[in-house]
Amino acid sequence: MTLHAFDDALQLTAQGSGQYQGLTSPAWWNMVGPFGGVTAAVALQAIMLHPERLGDPISLTVNYASGLVQGAFAVSAQAVRTNRSTQHWLVTLSQTDAQGASAVVLTATAITAVRRDTWSANDLPMPIVPPPEGLVRTHPPAGTVEWLNRYDMRLVSGPIPSRWDGGAASPDPALASLSQLWVRDDPARTLDFAALAALADVFFPRIWLRRAVMVPVGTVSLTVYFHATAAQLRETGNGYLLGQARGQAFCNGYFDQAGQLWSAAGHLLATTHQLVYYKK
Amino acid sequence: MTLHAFDDALQLTAQGSGQYQGLTSPAWWNMVGPFGGVTAAVALQAIMLHPERLGDPISLTVNYASGLVQGAFAVSAQAVRTNRSTQHWLVTLSQTDAQGASAVVLTATAITAVRRDTWSANDLPMPIVPPPEGLVRTHPPAGTVEWLNRYDMRLVSGPIPSRWDGGAASPDPALASLSQLWVRDDPARTLDFAALAALADVFFPRIWLRRAVMVPVGTVSLTVYFHATAAQLRETGNGYLLGQARGQAFCNGYFDQAGQLWSAAGHLLATTHQLVYYKK
Repeated sequence: MTLHAFDDALQLTAQGSGQYQGLTSPAWWNMVGPFGGVTAAVALQAIMLHPERLGDPISLTVNYASGLVQGAFAVSAQAVRTNRSTQHWLVTLSQTDAQGASAVVLTATAITAVRRDTWSANDLPMPIVPPPEGLVRTHPPAGTVEWLNRYDMRLVSGPIPSRWDGGAASPDPALASLSQLWVRDDPARTLDFAALAALADVFFPRIWLRRAVMVPVGTVSLTVYFHATAAQLRETGNGYLLGQARGQAFCNGYFDQAGQLWSAAGHLLATTHQLVYYKK
Repeated sequence: MTLHAFDDALQLTAQGSGQYQGLTSPAWWNMVGPFGGVTAAVALQAIMLHPERLGDPISLTVNYASGLVQGAFAVSAQAVRTNRSTQHWLVTLSQTDAQGASAVVLTATAITAVRRDTWSANDLPMPIVPPPEGLVRTHPPAGTVEWLNRYDMRLVSGPIPSRWDGGAASPDPALASLSQLWVRDDPARTLDFAALAALADVFFPRIWLRRAVMVPVGTVSLTVYFHATAAQLRETGNGYLLGQARGQAFCNGYFDQAGQLWSAAGHLLATTHQLVYYKK
């Protein structure tokens, strides 16, 4: 039985307390290095595998210091503080170059927590959109980046521009950089925290939609807040999630994006934000 | 000449490469420990003071591992990766207890960057609200937490409930946990990155507004994306900023909040998110 491509990318070999070795996967390749979502998932996976982990992830912030090169990487995940119901983590990914020098390629912080049943509410109800079954799957053009083939995406609104003519998508700022899509792993895979972290990064760069100009970009920081328990994620199964993202401020080389991921049943599973470099 | 209370809280004594010693300030006291905004500002200040800093902050994420107790704390700020135009930081704050044991009370990651002039845009225009001069300053009731006296706040919408009767503020989920206010340091102080980081945390807990129930709360993670250069902050001077915050998901003990801070001229200076513990 072959491993699912996502589980393959998440394979880490323990090498001591909180120290792991991993290997980049060609199945997840982006323009430069692996898809940022899968690298965020690897950082989280080091915590998930840690024998001293308390509770489940509630917050993850990943800063991308450099694109990963193909090959091995080292992960260090340290619980720097353990409270009664919360635990605070520092994670770094490093790679060793041909000269034997090790360099940090990613830093992350995370919080895991034991949750209790409390009053709960959702102030961002799922937008009313057509169900995924009635929508056409968006097939990336041949020759584009490999990781796009790892997801079944069905666009609802805010497509990648078909003409790179510098025309704004919408004169309304609330819609100008908004995309909505149904998405799930392909092949289907039961949802867990690592997969949800990766899904938080599936949106194409908002600035491409906003400007219809394909400027070079790269995410520098990604935060995911998890609003579901492990049991709730399992209950979501391998169904489609509705993802929504929009740009906020675009200023002198960096823009930020706010996003949400709902289960098809309308549960807001995660909210996410990222800061993205753009060249011009 | 006495130091401004904010500058006083930010005083750090260098003790070696990236190592600093600080002291909590009674002027900034919250329920348990100092106001989280000023502690975030201290973490950023350690980076601002670092002799090897490259560029200005674009992103800061602070995880609160514990309330600080009154007294001394140690700050460690390390540049773990320096690229051509970006630099990646790990910061920890620690305190030593009566038994001499040191414990981490805060972790942070940040990115500083040298910005270039590029195409820029704002997809979150400032809401149209009455100017601060025409609004009454919100004076905290006598005996409430001290740090509230450090800000001149003028509420536009979404006040702290006057009756804690469990009644939701609004049946519309888009408004139920929304607050807007004008805010500036008191005494006035020219805006900088540290002050902006602190201002990102001035909003009272969204769950109090949402439920009109005063449940115990505590921010566990705060992210600030800076969308302005140091020069743009200086140009803002010591004027009021318009702050806006709303809750997103409230689930099993944790809720998240998204916020924005505009200059009075309508420049979106920062976007911010936080995850907050609530007891029930």
